[in-house]
Amino acid sequence: MLVDGQPFRTVWIPEEEPEVVRIIDQRRLPFVFTLEDLRTTDEVACVIQDMWVRGAGCIGATAGFGMWLATKEAATDNDFDTALVRLSEKLRSTRPTAVNLAWAIDRQLEILAQSNEIPAKIDAARATAQLIADEDAAACRSIGEHGVKILEEISRAKNGEPVNVLTHCNAGWLAFVDYGSATAPIYAAHDKGIPVHVWVDETRPRNQGARLTAWELLKHGVPHTVIVDNAGGHLMRTGQVDLVITGTDRTTYTGDVCNKIGTYLKATAAKDCGLPFYVALPSSTFDWKARDGLAEVPIEQRSSDEVALVDGLLDGAETSVRILLEGSATANPAFDVTPARLVTGLITERGVCEAGEESILDLFPEKR
Amino acid sequence: MLVDGQPFRTVWIPEEEPEVVRIIDQRRLPFVFTLEDLRTTDEVACVIQDMWVRGAGCIGATAGFGMWLATKEAATDNDFDTALVRLSEKLRSTRPTAVNLAWAIDRQLEILAQSNEIPAKIDAARATAQLIADEDAAACRSIGEHGVKILEEISRAKNGEPVNVLTHCNAGWLAFVDYGSATAPIYAAHDKGIPVHVWVDETRPRNQGARLTAWELLKHGVPHTVIVDNAGGHLMRTGQVDLVITGTDRTTYTGDVCNKIGTYLKATAAKDCGLPFYVALPSSTFDWKARDGLAEVPIEQRSSDEVALVDGLLDGAETSVRILLEGSATANPAFDVTPARLVTGLITERGVCEAGEESILDLFPEKR
Repeated sequence: MLVDGQPFRTVWIPEEEPEVVRIIDQRRLPFVFTLEDLRTTDEVACVIQDMWVRGAGCIGATAGFGMWLATKEAATDNDFDTALVRLSEKLRSTRPTAVNLAWAIDRQLEILAQSNEIPAKIDAARATAQLIADEDAAACRSIGEHGVKILEEISRAKNGEPVNVLTHCNAGWLAFVDYGSATAPIYAAHDKGIPVHVWVDETRPRNQGARLTAWELLKHGVPHTVIVDNAGGHLMRTGQVDLVITGTDRTTYTGDVCNKIGTYLKATAAKDCGLPFYVALPSSTFDWKARDGLAEVPIEQRSSDEVALVDGLLDGAETSVRILLEGSATANPAFDVTPARLVTGLITERGVCEAGEESILDLFPEKR
Repeated sequence: MLVDGQPFRTVWIPEEEPEVVRIIDQRRLPFVFTLEDLRTTDEVACVIQDMWVRGAGCIGATAGFGMWLATKEAATDNDFDTALVRLSEKLRSTRPTAVNLAWAIDRQLEILAQSNEIPAKIDAARATAQLIADEDAAACRSIGEHGVKILEEISRAKNGEPVNVLTHCNAGWLAFVDYGSATAPIYAAHDKGIPVHVWVDETRPRNQGARLTAWELLKHGVPHTVIVDNAGGHLMRTGQVDLVITGTDRTTYTGDVCNKIGTYLKATAAKDCGLPFYVALPSSTFDWKARDGLAEVPIEQRSSDEVALVDGLLDGAETSVRILLEGSATANPAFDVTPARLVTGLITERGVCEAGEESILDLFPEKR
């Protein structure tokens, strides 16, 4: 998407530097926008592990490009195959729970096994990395094309008044390669000239809404307003929200949605107000084995520091302040599960379906 | 309540300094606990206006004591009556929307009009100030006595396992003279030896939960855990919350509850989970004229700085950090309205009633 008028992806091979992988360093957003050139597998492992890049699609694509650098590095070793295994395992160990990471590495290893010559392997790895990135972007663009119809319909019903979308956390292009999931229909609407305004939940404790989603929308020029996570229910009840669209970290094949903590609260309020609550996802986010989200999806408990400390800018420098006394305990569940019955629909790259087993499997019959 | 083992109120006349009014300076809590002695009406006006003290009951009681200082000050003036009017108007203008403030001042003026001699007026003002404070404390203590029965019943049903209460914002003793409203049943249970544990919503944007409620519970020794506002729904859905108790800023005679922004989200989640959602209030908080909370209670829009900046401690000093770029708009509605249909019951100084016109008027028949 656009950053101050110039199109960007989260990870790519720059034309003018065709031997490096370039990423946006997301750690310091929104306060500092910097690009970083990666030349070694070690550097790629570092930026994934230390969260210079984050988000399922973005991690997968970065690992894909990392495997290309790994083939170039292994080519300088006496034993290409052993070196490649070592380098791929280094990449794989950076974020052990990220599904897309292992998936991208395995896909590369499968392709590389089909070539015999080292130069052909390097070419194949480069092409596959590009394909992984392009496929991720294409899936998100398709989500946008399907989802924008929902916004168009609301816009028509409102006689062209801005469509007010509420979103939670960052399911934007920074979490993928381009477009994002929850944001894809929003960008598609904006780019088609459909007036849209986004309520951005700040998304405590890590404030990915205030930091990343707001930055994305600001840089692409989409009207938006940042609110505390507490405000969404009031805005829904007073007619200031037309629909909610969130992303998801994992969705069961029955339609239960595991997403950033706080999503469930917005879903219950949307239900109470009779408002549509959509979840946007590439189909790679479905868990085809999990039936009951609450019972089967483990919820990560993260550091208490994320509750006790808030990061921000002071006199131009980034720092963090403590907001409560050390004697008080904190708890920090990172995700919650929104039951399918509260979800109006799932917006996927193949179209929109109901959040229910039959409807999902109708769209993905190969999973039956 | 207790602060490190010693009992405190939010405002009182100290035995050892019987001519001053002493308050807790709440601005710097939880990081610094300081008392302040007030000797003039100007000083009282200042601490109300600049929010050294806050919360309906606490503001009313402080103004009551301020009127006693005003009588002593007016006694040094040639024209007692004119001076008293001037001083009372100064107090009244500090927080124009605070109902309890004007109520306490008018109550004092009515009492003072009944004495002829200035020394008698001063004595009457002192006694009335003490009475206002004592009545506020007694009302909150009664809320605790009625509300603790709900906790006792849950405790019995759980065979003495800790009762998990979720609360939002600060409806604690710092907002009143003692005990608080939402916290009164919690303190009563704790002091009776009923095991209780409190989930404390941090309550963005001003973090009164993380700063004030957590401080209160820590200092009184009540087990508690601070969470981000997003976490409560997940805790309810996973059986970690037994009931919700909040305070209220204004409650219609039909049972609609206007309270700190985010209350409504917790109420919709409690409903979805089938959990009890109680609101505790002294009857002074009822609005006997408002029928429809959403239509009739105006919602204050506060400064965007409260969203963009977070206050906290850095290297031992209080400061604030900016959490989003200046280019993004913010919105900051301070309250929301929870409809009566989502409220299990109201805990008042006269007992517990349903959140509905008939049940409320049965408890307060003089308002029919």
